[in-house]
Amino acid sequence: MEILKKKILEEGEIHEGNILKVDSFLNHQIDIPFLKEIGKEFYNCFKDENVNKILTIESSGIAIAAMAAQEFGCPLVFAKKSITKNIAGDIYLTPVESFTHGTTYGVIVSKEFLGKGDRVLIIDDFLAMGNALNGLIEIVKESGAELVGCGAVIEKAYQGGGDKLRKKGLHVESLAVIESMDHKTGTIEFRD
Amino acid sequence: MEILKKKILEEGEIHEGNILKVDSFLNHQIDIPFLKEIGKEFYNCFKDENVNKILTIESSGIAIAAMAAQEFGCPLVFAKKSITKNIAGDIYLTPVESFTHGTTYGVIVSKEFLGKGDRVLIIDDFLAMGNALNGLIEIVKESGAELVGCGAVIEKAYQGGGDKLRKKGLHVESLAVIESMDHKTGTIEFRD
Repeated sequence: MEILKKKILEEGEIHEGNILKVDSFLNHQIDIPFLKEIGKEFYNCFKDENVNKILTIESSGIAIAAMAAQEFGCPLVFAKKSITKNIAGDIYLTPVESFTHGTTYGVIVSKEFLGKGDRVLIIDDFLAMGNALNGLIEIVKESGAELVGCGAVIEKAYQGGGDKLRKKGLHVESLAVIESMDHKTGTIEFRD
Repeated sequence: MEILKKKILEEGEIHEGNILKVDSFLNHQIDIPFLKEIGKEFYNCFKDENVNKILTIESSGIAIAAMAAQEFGCPLVFAKKSITKNIAGDIYLTPVESFTHGTTYGVIVSKEFLGKGDRVLIIDDFLAMGNALNGLIEIVKESGAELVGCGAVIEKAYQGGGDKLRKKGLHVESLAVIESMDHKTGTIEFRD
């Protein structure tokens, strides 16, 4: 997606440790008119899949998933990262390692909102090692729902998570795939 | 907002301790076509205020704020609840007490995304004691931006936060205002 690559080059900040900050439009401030285009692009990728539910994970995935869900005309479910007083009853729970925070956390979805008959598209902001996506995939499997694919806004290909999922036969679409970044020179190389 | 009251009555679950669970359309599964109507309603309440930024707090506020921001054609900024590796540099930070979790956490907004010249509408899912809103209001004040008002989807009037803010002269709009709830009888009484 050319306008996304342009935006990453213009507004992205590369930090040491292979961290790409896109806080000006995706992860802190969210450029909603721009995200509308992102939502349409995900719709184009998966429009023939009869998606009836978008699954994402708090927090950065939510706005993206909302704009995609709008295009599909379906609800979204966002997985929660910790057990709160307000989640009760039967849940799917899977552990996920966080690259950003260097910790492991539990990912939770209420059984009420995911199950047989659902055709699920997983949406997230970043696809790096694929840890968060793998957690969500586990939950979809456990629920008996059908996973139609995964969409990420930005994939860091050098961390391998996306290609591992593709090798497993999964339909993975990333709207910008970064092959390499260099925080010293500030350069970003995209996959064609 | 009549369709919202109807939805709360049909799908809301009242739990002990004055907790209203609306996980089927607002706090876990999100009914995006319905939230589009919520976004339009907030736009109607504040359309003459030249809003150029929506401010909310992760996670439950994000989808609502996204649908409102879409109506205003402006970006949203979501305040974060903890310091992560990915937030660096100058930040606004204010402590907020959580009614749901029984803890105090730091609410953070990067100075880059809020400041003089901004006309800010704060959006959140619930308005109870007003703790989260008060934290966001503090941050808007500190930033030098203009606060045009606050919008909540559901206000629990019996916890007093909304009326306290109104008494201070703030423009507060809640789309459904609950005067009382009873978890034993399952009844909910709305303000007219």
